[in-house]
Parts: sequence; structure tokens; C-alpha cells
Amino acid sequence: MQKRPLILVTNDDGITAPGIRTLIKVMNTLGDVVVVAPDSPQSGMGHAITLDTTLHCNKEKIDKGPQTEYSTSGTPADCIKLAIHEIIGKTPDLVVSGINHGSNSSINVIYSGTMSAAIEAGIEGIPAIGFSVLDYNWEAEFGHVEAFVKTITTNVLENGLPKGIVLNVNFPKATKDPIKGIKVCRQAKANWVEEFDKRQNPQGKDYYWLSGKFVNLDKGEDTDEWALEHGYVSVVPVQFDLTAHHFIQELNSWSLHD
Amino acid sequence: MQKRPLILVTNDDGITAPGIRTLIKVMNTLGDVVVVAPDSPQSGMGHAITLDTTLHCNKEKIDKGPQTEYSTSGTPADCIKLAIHEIIGKTPDLVVSGINHGSNSSINVIYSGTMSAAIEAGIEGIPAIGFSVLDYNWEAEFGHVEAFVKTITTNVLENGLPKGIVLNVNFPKATKDPIKGIKVCRQAKANWVEEFDKRQNPQGKDYYWLSGKFVNLDKGEDTDEWALEHGYVSVVPVQFDLTAHHFIQELNSWSLHD
Repeated sequence: MQKRPLILVTNDDGITAPGIRTLIKVMNTLGDVVVVAPDSPQSGMGHAITLDTTLHCNKEKIDKGPQTEYSTSGTPADCIKLAIHEIIGKTPDLVVSGINHGSNSSINVIYSGTMSAAIEAGIEGIPAIGFSVLDYNWEAEFGHVEAFVKTITTNVLENGLPKGIVLNVNFPKATKDPIKGIKVCRQAKANWVEEFDKRQNPQGKDYYWLSGKFVNLDKGEDTDEWALEHGYVSVVPVQFDLTAHHFIQELNSWSLHD
Repeated sequence: MQKRPLILVTNDDGITAPGIRTLIKVMNTLGDVVVVAPDSPQSGMGHAITLDTTLHCNKEKIDKGPQTEYSTSGTPADCIKLAIHEIIGKTPDLVVSGINHGSNSSINVIYSGTMSAAIEAGIEGIPAIGFSVLDYNWEAEFGHVEAFVKTITTNVLENGLPKGIVLNVNFPKATKDPIKGIKVCRQAKANWVEEFDKRQNPQGKDYYWLSGKFVNLDKGEDTDEWALEHGYVSVVPVQFDLTAHHFIQELNSWSLHD
């Protein structure tokens, strides 16, 4: 790529989160950076878009650096739409989302605001990457992932991505051991087993907090969960044609046409 | 199936919407019905879940019929989790979601609260169907789809669905012509071209309404958009492994391991 690429940065933890500040710092070394991110945390928003409320947008100056920054009242998917069609007014060369505080591996991709922004960019035909670290803390360590973020982003800028494919990148939590390397993986077949914490409010009415534990029954060594457990970065290519093509023939044998 | 199946009904337009009332009426002819649905409209919520707020639940009696009903303060995905793990306390034989007022065909499946409920059930290993009519009006006509809802549901109760697959069913808007039949389809490669309606509030500050127009560049005659345009019901089998398996080999040829 001859000229400096235009890179759009967003996330779902909000524009002031340490994760996005790290991502902006790395992207400033690779291109011209515009940040359009939610003004408050949006975790667990899935691929929500704002249909029934108005969207607001404010120019921001959060920290030093050459990037231009805007916060919006919308979801991560809203940020992508608003950035491309109103704020920047043109199509960036790359969209990066994150670095999320917490895992978006395996089934978490479905609930992820971070990945919904990357997927929204993919729907618009723009190469996109979502980055996440397996550490939910606001003070999570990000120093151990910076070189990998740069390597993966450089590869995407050089090779491009086919239309309809984006990358879901997850990093192990920082430990005393360095990350072993990068594994290209498939999404593990894992899920959450829900538990609700049932409580009573001072007026005696029941309410619930969602909790639950993550269960991975997928023993494959080619999954994102395997890579992360063994100290590697997981890179899963993600697409958004949800059709179960292999089941179409079977469905056609059903009695749907009587 | 010997005993009457236990059917969980939800939606994203809210428990009082005409679409879910039609769905409950049909399901009452097929099994024992429990309704757990949002207390207010949740359209465009994608696969959002409630992590940072408490959930409330109320027993309801909206209209006549043998069904048991609860409204919740949560999203459609929350309703499924809460129903299975707290309200019913056991796994239903089938989950149906809808009937949505508006299309969830092609790329709309990604933004759909209706389908997120069906997908959440699928993640839990329960057969599930999302139903939608291509009519956004609150007073949409549903009479023309009742027989098709019954046929498709009966087929799922008799045949089951493989773990990890749910159905996305869309119906044409009512016209003077009857529906021609059912087509098993793939998700069309279509998308929204966004337009934002930029306005100023009385204090002179800009705000935006999301709008846009739907563009289908997919000329295939095996897509859901083709079926709906030609007067058929579309049935797309949906899965939630987002891995672009065909791109893994290519990614492994990149310089990610230097």
C-alpha cells in the first residue's frame, strides 16, 4: 500500500477504555486514524442498532496523538454506520475494533459488541479485525499484545480480506510467560450454562442478575479455545452467511409442500 | 410425539404485539404453551443480553387461552435464558419466536431480536423457529400465514432439528393473492445502504436518525429474497458457527508466524 491507510477504530467498552487507547497507539504507527466509539460501555449488546432513538456525536480529545476522535451515543454497529456515512463520509481502508476487555472467543462472538462492529464493517465490504484480551478488568494488561496487534494488522493491510470475511482475534491474559505465537483456528463449540442470581428488592419483589459458567465440550485442537488455553493468540476468520447449507437437502425432504 | 409438547413462545416486538398473539393461538393447537416475552419492543437489539442491569419478570394475562404468560424487562435472548433456567425451570420441546412485524430475511437475521431468541434456544440445544412477516405495521395482517406456521411447526415437532440448527421463516405481506407455497432457501447476499437523517435540536445541536434502503444484488433463485418476492414463504436453516472454514488454509499462508 503506497499512501498511509485510513484506519477507523471503535470498540464496545467505550471511548475512554484502556483497551481502545492501546489499539489507537498501535494504529497510529500504521496509518491515519479516526476513532468513532461509544461514549459509554456497550458490552453484551450483540449486533444491536439504534432504530427508535436519535444518535448524538461529539468531537473528543481523550489523550495525545495524531488521531481524530468522536464519541457517539450509539452501539458499536451504529458507530461504524455513522462513521462511514456521516462523520468520515468515506470508506476507510480498514476497521479495527477493541481491544476488548474480555474474551470474544467461541460462542461469545454472537454476544459481542466488539465483533458486531467488525462484522458491520464486513457487511459494508471493508476489511476488519476485532481484538480481545481474556481479561475483564478495566486495568487489564495490554503491553504483551501490542506486537501481535501490529503483525496481524500489517498482514491484513498487505493481503486484504475477501469480501464477507473479518477476523476475530483473541489474546491470552498476561502472565509471566510470553505468548507462544499465533494460531489460525475455528470457533469452538462451547456455550454458557446460565445461572441466575435471584434476589429481592427492598419492596419484596424478585429480580435477577444473569451469571453463568462457560463450558467447552469441544476437544478439537484446531479451536480458538484450545489455542488460548495453550498460550497462543487465536485468529478465527468470521463470515456472516448464517445459512446451514448442509441441511438444505434434508429440509427439502420434509412434508412442507403438501 | 406421544405427550403434548411443551412450547416456549417469545418475540421482540413485546408481549402485547398482534404477531405474538397469533403465534400463541396457533401453538395452543399443537402443545402446552408458556410465553416469556419482553414487556416492551426490542427491535434491532441483535443478540443483546443484559449484563449490567437487573431483570424483572411479571406474570401476565393478556388474552384468553390456556397459555401461561410472563413478561420480562430483558431482551429476547434474556427471555430464553430466564425462561429455561428460572421461570419454567426445564427445557421445552420447542421454542418459537415472533411472529415479527417486519422482515428478518437475508442480512436482517444479524440485527434481529426475533432470530436471536431462536439462536439462543439453538445454543441450548433446543429446536427453534423464528417467524416474521414482511409488514412493519402494528396492524399487520397475519391470517394468511397461520396454516403455514402450523405446517412448519408440525414438521419440526415430528422431525426434530440437528443440534446447532434453527429455522428462519419469513412470510410475504398479505395481498389479494394467496401464498404460493414454501421454499427452502439460503440467506441472500443483500445489505442496507445507510442514510442518516441529520437534524438539529432546539438548542442547535446536531442529531441523527438511522434510515437507509435495502439493496439485494444477489441474483440467485435459491435465496430467501427471491422466494419472498415471488410470493413464497422462505425457510432458511440457520447455524451459529461463524467460522469461514474455507479461508483457514489461505490465512495459514500469511506471514503470521515470523
